[in-house]
Amino acid sequence: MALLFTNATILPMTAADGRPRTFAGAVGIEGNRIRLVTEDAAAAEAFRAAHPDARVFDCRGKLLMPGLVNTHCHAAMTLQRSYADDIPLMEWLNDYIWPFEARQTADDAALGMTLGIVEMLLGGVTSFVDMYYHEDRCVDVVRQLGIRAMLGCNYFDSNIEEALPVVERALRRAEGCDRVRIAVAPHAPYTVSPDNLLRGKELCDRCGLHLTTHIAETRDEARFVRERYGRTPVAHLDALGLLTERTIGAHCIHLSDEDIEILRERGVYVSHNPQSNMKIASGVAPVAKLLGCGVPVTVATDGPCSNNDLDMWDEMRTAAFLQKSATGDPCMLPAYEVLEMATVNGAAALGHAGELGVIAEGVLADVIVVDLQKPHLQPVHDVVSNLVYCGKASDVETVVVDGRVVVEERRIAGVDLPQLYADAAAAVKRIGGR
Amino acid sequence: MALLFTNATILPMTAADGRPRTFAGAVGIEGNRIRLVTEDAAAAEAFRAAHPDARVFDCRGKLLMPGLVNTHCHAAMTLQRSYADDIPLMEWLNDYIWPFEARQTADDAALGMTLGIVEMLLGGVTSFVDMYYHEDRCVDVVRQLGIRAMLGCNYFDSNIEEALPVVERALRRAEGCDRVRIAVAPHAPYTVSPDNLLRGKELCDRCGLHLTTHIAETRDEARFVRERYGRTPVAHLDALGLLTERTIGAHCIHLSDEDIEILRERGVYVSHNPQSNMKIASGVAPVAKLLGCGVPVTVATDGPCSNNDLDMWDEMRTAAFLQKSATGDPCMLPAYEVLEMATVNGAAALGHAGELGVIAEGVLADVIVVDLQKPHLQPVHDVVSNLVYCGKASDVETVVVDGRVVVEERRIAGVDLPQLYADAAAAVKRIGGR
Repeated sequence: MALLFTNATILPMTAADGRPRTFAGAVGIEGNRIRLVTEDAAAAEAFRAAHPDARVFDCRGKLLMPGLVNTHCHAAMTLQRSYADDIPLMEWLNDYIWPFEARQTADDAALGMTLGIVEMLLGGVTSFVDMYYHEDRCVDVVRQLGIRAMLGCNYFDSNIEEALPVVERALRRAEGCDRVRIAVAPHAPYTVSPDNLLRGKELCDRCGLHLTTHIAETRDEARFVRERYGRTPVAHLDALGLLTERTIGAHCIHLSDEDIEILRERGVYVSHNPQSNMKIASGVAPVAKLLGCGVPVTVATDGPCSNNDLDMWDEMRTAAFLQKSATGDPCMLPAYEVLEMATVNGAAALGHAGELGVIAEGVLADVIVVDLQKPHLQPVHDVVSNLVYCGKASDVETVVVDGRVVVEERRIAGVDLPQLYADAAAAVKRIGGR
Repeated sequence: MALLFTNATILPMTAADGRPRTFAGAVGIEGNRIRLVTEDAAAAEAFRAAHPDARVFDCRGKLLMPGLVNTHCHAAMTLQRSYADDIPLMEWLNDYIWPFEARQTADDAALGMTLGIVEMLLGGVTSFVDMYYHEDRCVDVVRQLGIRAMLGCNYFDSNIEEALPVVERALRRAEGCDRVRIAVAPHAPYTVSPDNLLRGKELCDRCGLHLTTHIAETRDEARFVRERYGRTPVAHLDALGLLTERTIGAHCIHLSDEDIEILRERGVYVSHNPQSNMKIASGVAPVAKLLGCGVPVTVATDGPCSNNDLDMWDEMRTAAFLQKSATGDPCMLPAYEVLEMATVNGAAALGHAGELGVIAEGVLADVIVVDLQKPHLQPVHDVVSNLVYCGKASDVETVVVDGRVVVEERRIAGVDLPQLYADAAAAVKRIGGR
């Protein structure tokens, strides 16, 4: 069925010069592609006439823009949201997170993933990159809920024999669904040996997959990798051939100038997770510098244990504020640049450059409608500033992924929220809450 | 009319040991005071029997807590929200903010204040400290909308002759309304001369008023004050006698150890504005250190030009994350401590210590009900962590100020939002938007 959005303020995110542009107009969707983007009322009328069964959404007072892309999370960890906060890192991992994870099943991960995807969809996230266990099982959840995802099958040295077959199973389960891509996800250069990193890379090469991993998240990691391998984490991964334009590196905080040059040369996508970095006190990623050097940086929430939510609006705002604060320059990372990170750059990181992350004729139809008629979004001097500095997940009203309406009037059809909460509570009780 | 909230998860914020405590129970309100806080269903039933006309709110799946206190803002500046972002400070002030302000009338300020209060009430803010022009006119807005406020009449050297009489007019307009307090608000030690600071202090002493001012917000200010007066901003204000337990100092970023000791000794309340400090790149206030030394720190949004909203949930989260990031210690400023800053400490800053900012029998009835049945607030391992790290303004469902229900099902009775947005748009157009 076709969709037609009329009377919208459209933010296409197509400006190549970094200068925001919005216009009043209409957007028509046919199948899973945007087929019409116009300022011309007659063209909108013609689209409607050509598609008599089209659903029409009157977007007066609303803004239509590309869906947000969350390039790094562990969505299933919603089950551990606020499980253990404000305590030292190693105590957090040893006494809470790892024992909890050891006790959960694939169905638990699927349940956590469901809750996470529901939260993301309601907040205007139309695609995300995940990194966790049980991703084969989670393919079903993504297929069912209608979001777009790249599911990264996580492994350490300790579980590689069980983890790599997950990739193959996940690929089979994703067959026939273009919304789901599978990635290989070695945990980090300090937790996976060079041999095992290479096994992941070979699997990527053989199956044509993306690779995603944590890079240079903490000072301890950087020191450990340098002591063990004589190189920075970035140089170490590069020497193994793991850095390509199909690599998404999460965090990338502790970088040398040479590291930044390597990332740029290889075309690696950096996933910036500002709230997680602040909450865990990992440091501040040099985002403005990376962007200035031509490295494509994206935005992400990280997992709900270290954030503690999956809210990309919060994350965009924090990304801007944190760069201004850390550099001492209020001009750093202006609002529109952050929006580009969360849309255009994120889509490119997923391998969809040019066909996702913008509002243009011919691209994949992942679009969101934001209600501007809210006290915190009025008046409108500058709608881009309002979106990035004041926008909330709860301002998102309608969400379309791959041409299908998945959120309407802030509801997801087919999801019984009270039952979902009850299931999550029961799972947490069984696995062992506090 | 009496109010009775049943089946609630109650977060009283009364724990003196910093350990959060919640319980299931009921809260009864009579007039403008909380008269019943109980875990005992029979006591709730007795309250209902004694007040047959009581409105009863079933709070199953919801949390009841004290309203949030925003201790520093310029609410009327909603009209300049996103008017000029991501540009250098002096260009921002000279070319945008000051010319805009010179063109606005008292009615414009009242309109901006209306929009700001609506946003705050919908986000669970039950009292705020303001600092701006035209506060006499704004008394009417506060009276009408039902929020609690301390309105600080702002002055510089340049406008003191017109500004000080505003205080007296505001006092007269506030007569008979306990919700409104008036304060004297010299802008800052670098923009107001010692003589004029003393005139403000004398007015405070004569009328028994609070004083609020910006203190040590930027490095430039600290350098200027030291060069001109030979002291730090804090020591300078203290030498003039301006620092007492009736003083609210906004920002307090660039402090020496001696400054912190002065603030502690005088009992000054510090208003921490983390998002504004980050966005304008002012620096990071030493909040954990201040609290550790016994200085009462509160949380605030600052004005909508430098934030760009009036959302205390965002602000609480950022306060915690920023301290962890800046100190490199993830244990700093845990969730419950931030909630104390935004409730108990804020109430004390307003001169309401012991009778506001907590849920207890006999205190003023400023309470909010938060809907916990949201994807981003589930599951509930730790409700305090969930509130601070995941809570949103839009989770607030019901707001009671001074015993009166002012927000119900996320609506404010008597406020026509579309008309308010239209009025704001018209005002902005007349004053001169971009």
